[in-house]
Amino acid sequence: MSTISEKIFSRASGKEAKANDFVIADVDFAMAHDGTSVLAVNAFREMEEEKVWNPERIIIPFDHLTPANTDTTAGLQQEIRGWIKDQGIKNFYDVGEGICHQLLPENGFALPGKLIVGADSHSCTYGAFGAFGTGVGATDMAEIFSSGKLWFKVPESIKITAEGKLNNGVYAKDLILKIIGTLGVAGATYKAAEFYGSTIEALSMSGRMTLSNMAIEMGGKAGIVPPDKTTFDFLENIASEEYEPVYADEDAVYSKEYDFDATELEPQIAIPHQVDNVQDISEIKPTKLDQAFIGTCTNGRLEDLEVAASILKGEKVAIRTIVVPASRNVLVEAVRKGIIETLLDAGVVVGPPGCGPCLGGHMGVIGKGETCISTANRNFKGRMGTGGLIYLSSPATAAASALTGEITDPREI
Amino acid sequence: MSTISEKIFSRASGKEAKANDFVIADVDFAMAHDGTSVLAVNAFREMEEEKVWNPERIIIPFDHLTPANTDTTAGLQQEIRGWIKDQGIKNFYDVGEGICHQLLPENGFALPGKLIVGADSHSCTYGAFGAFGTGVGATDMAEIFSSGKLWFKVPESIKITAEGKLNNGVYAKDLILKIIGTLGVAGATYKAAEFYGSTIEALSMSGRMTLSNMAIEMGGKAGIVPPDKTTFDFLENIASEEYEPVYADEDAVYSKEYDFDATELEPQIAIPHQVDNVQDISEIKPTKLDQAFIGTCTNGRLEDLEVAASILKGEKVAIRTIVVPASRNVLVEAVRKGIIETLLDAGVVVGPPGCGPCLGGHMGVIGKGETCISTANRNFKGRMGTGGLIYLSSPATAAASALTGEITDPREI
Repeated sequence: MSTISEKIFSRASGKEAKANDFVIADVDFAMAHDGTSVLAVNAFREMEEEKVWNPERIIIPFDHLTPANTDTTAGLQQEIRGWIKDQGIKNFYDVGEGICHQLLPENGFALPGKLIVGADSHSCTYGAFGAFGTGVGATDMAEIFSSGKLWFKVPESIKITAEGKLNNGVYAKDLILKIIGTLGVAGATYKAAEFYGSTIEALSMSGRMTLSNMAIEMGGKAGIVPPDKTTFDFLENIASEEYEPVYADEDAVYSKEYDFDATELEPQIAIPHQVDNVQDISEIKPTKLDQAFIGTCTNGRLEDLEVAASILKGEKVAIRTIVVPASRNVLVEAVRKGIIETLLDAGVVVGPPGCGPCLGGHMGVIGKGETCISTANRNFKGRMGTGGLIYLSSPATAAASALTGEITDPREI
Repeated sequence: MSTISEKIFSRASGKEAKANDFVIADVDFAMAHDGTSVLAVNAFREMEEEKVWNPERIIIPFDHLTPANTDTTAGLQQEIRGWIKDQGIKNFYDVGEGICHQLLPENGFALPGKLIVGADSHSCTYGAFGAFGTGVGATDMAEIFSSGKLWFKVPESIKITAEGKLNNGVYAKDLILKIIGTLGVAGATYKAAEFYGSTIEALSMSGRMTLSNMAIEMGGKAGIVPPDKTTFDFLENIASEEYEPVYADEDAVYSKEYDFDATELEPQIAIPHQVDNVQDISEIKPTKLDQAFIGTCTNGRLEDLEVAASILKGEKVAIRTIVVPASRNVLVEAVRKGIIETLLDAGVVVGPPGCGPCLGGHMGVIGKGETCISTANRNFKGRMGTGGLIYLSSPATAAASALTGEITDPREI
C-alpha cells in the first residue's frame, strides 16, 4: 500500500519509508547549474571536503546566465569550470548546450524510480519520467556533493486524474495551469503529486515534462507521471544506466484526490502576479502586449517550437518575440525541420539555448509597465524586469498573441 | 584637384570645400543606435526642439544591448521607442534585426557620394560604398536631429594603395590589420583614407566594409573605397534613393601615400591591448584561448560565417565559440545555406543578430585573465570583460583557433 514516492524513498533509504517518515536517502543523480553551483561549491569548501562523493553522478549545466552577461558572471563561471575539472566531473554542459531540466532527460539521467535532486526548484521536471525529482537549496546540495546522501521527510501524495482528449489548441500547459489555478499556489505544499488518467497517458514526454515542471508552482515536492511505453520509448537508446520502473500500489494512500475533465478545457492564462491567478482565455479582458517569449524548461522543446512555427508561418509578429530553444539538440532539430527559418521569417528573435529572459537576467528584460506573454512557469512580480507584467500561457497562445499584439486565443487564428 | 571627401563636402555644404576648411554641411542620413540615441534624444530635448528635421533621414537600429540585458536597458529602449513613434521615424530596427553598420548598407542607405553621420565611431563603415561616413558624439547628433546640419573641418586625405592577390587564408581583415599595424593607432588622425589598388578592387562589398569599418582604429575620420561595378551591383535593387558616385581628381592632393604588397601578406593578429599591436601569425607565440567570437560590424557577414563554417565543418570546437550574425538577413541566409547547422554541429553557440559580446555588455563576457580571439575591431583593455585579453583576427583565423584552443594559422588546418 505504497505510493510511488514511498517506494522510491524505501529503495533509496534502504528501509521501508512511509509518508511523514524522516529518512536519509542515497541520491542517484545530483544537479546544480551555473547559478546554484557557485553557492553549493562555496558551502562544500566550507565543509573542508576535498573530493565529491561520486563525480559520475553530479551533473552541472550552465544555463541561467549564458553566455556570461557580466564580469561577475564570467568570473564565477570561470571558477566553477576550474572546480569541475579538479573534481573530474564529466557531465558538464557549458554555455549554449541548454537548460538543465532539458539536458538531464536528453542525456538519459531522468530515469524511472530514481531519486534525482537538483539545486533548482524546477527539478520536479524529472517526475515526468517516473523519477522522484526535487529541488533543494545550495547548502543541501553541498551535503549531497560531499556524501551522496540527504535527509528527507517522505511526502504525502496527492492523486491528480485528468480524463478525456484535449481540444485542438489546448495543451499540457493549459492543463497544468488549470490544475494550479484549482489547487492554488500552496495546494500541494510538500506533497508529491501523482498524475493519472487518459489525458496524461496521451501526452508526449514533452507534454509530461511541462506538467511535472510546474508541480512546484502549487507547492509540490514532486510531480510524478507513472512510466509507460511513451517513457520507455523515449529512453530506449539514451538511458545512462539501468532503471527499475516504480508504480503505486492499488491501495496506496493519497491525502487528497482531484479529478479534471480535459474535454472541457480551453486555453488558460495565468495573469500577474501569481501562477494560480488562472483564467479561461475567453474570460480575459483585452490585453495589449509588448513582448512574447517562447522557451524555458516548461515550454522550450521541439514540439513547442513546432506549434509556434505552425501559427507564425507566413505571417509577421506584431511585437518583440523571443524564442529560446531549451537545448542545442532542440535547436539543431528545429533548424533541420525548417522551424527556425519559419520563425526568423516571421520576425522572431532566436536566442541561444538556455534559460533566456525567464529570470530577468538578460536577453529580453522587460521595462516598467511592459507586458510579456511567456511560456515560462512563473509570473512573479518583477521576475522579467522591475515593473513588468507577465502572462503565462502555452506556446500556441503565445504565438497567436505575438501575431496580434494582444492576448489571443490560438483557436481563433 | 579634389579628393573624394572634398567633393562630398562641397556638394553637402553648397560651396567649394578644401581640406582644413570649416563648413556647415547637410547630412544625408543620420544614425543613432540604442546606446547613443538615449544621449542624443536627451540633448535634443534640452534644445527644446519638438520635431526632428526629417524623420525619413534618421535611422535608429537597436543593436548594442539587444534583447535588453537589464532593467535599465529595457527602460531606456522603451523610452526611445516612444520617441521614435512620436517623431514618425520609420527607419527603426528593433532588437534582433542586426547591427547598425550592417543595416544601413542592407537597406540601401549607404550610397556613393552621400554624407552619412552616425552616433557610433564605426560609422566609417559606409565609406565602403564611396560615401563619407563618420561618427560623432551624441550631442552633435542632437544638432543633426534638430537641423539636419553639422559643422565639419574638411579632412585632409591619405591614399592607401594595396596591389596583388591575397593568399589563400588571408582576407580583408588581415589587410586592414596590417595597414593599422603599419600606420599606428594615430597614423590617420582626422584624415580621410582613400583605398586604391587591385587588392581593394578585387574585394567583395563585405571585404570592403571590413576595411572601411576599421579606418577609425588608425584615427581616420573616414575610410573610403571608390565605388565601382561591385558597389553598383550590390546597390542595384536596394538603393533607398538616387545617388551620384564621386571620385577623386587625378591631381587630388594627399597628405601622405602608403603602398602595400598584398601578395606578401599572411594572417595578422592584433595582440592585447592595442589595435596596432599587430603581428604576422607566424611570429605569434603559442597562445591558449578560452573563447572565440566571430561576428560584429567588422566580420559578422555571410562571407565571414561561410569561411568559419568551411573550417569547422565536421569538426568540434575546443573552446567556447560564439557566432553572432551581423543581421537577420545574414542569419536567415546562413540558415538557408546550411551554415548555421554546420556551426551548431561543431558546438558553436549562435547568438541573435546584434553587437553580441563585442563591447562586454552581455552574451559572452570574459573573465579575469581569460583570452578571447575575436573578429571585432577593438582589443582595448577590459572591453569584453575586466581583466580579459582580446586577440583580433579574421574569421578564418578565429575558426581555426576555435578548433585547436590556441591561436592557429588557418592555412595549417
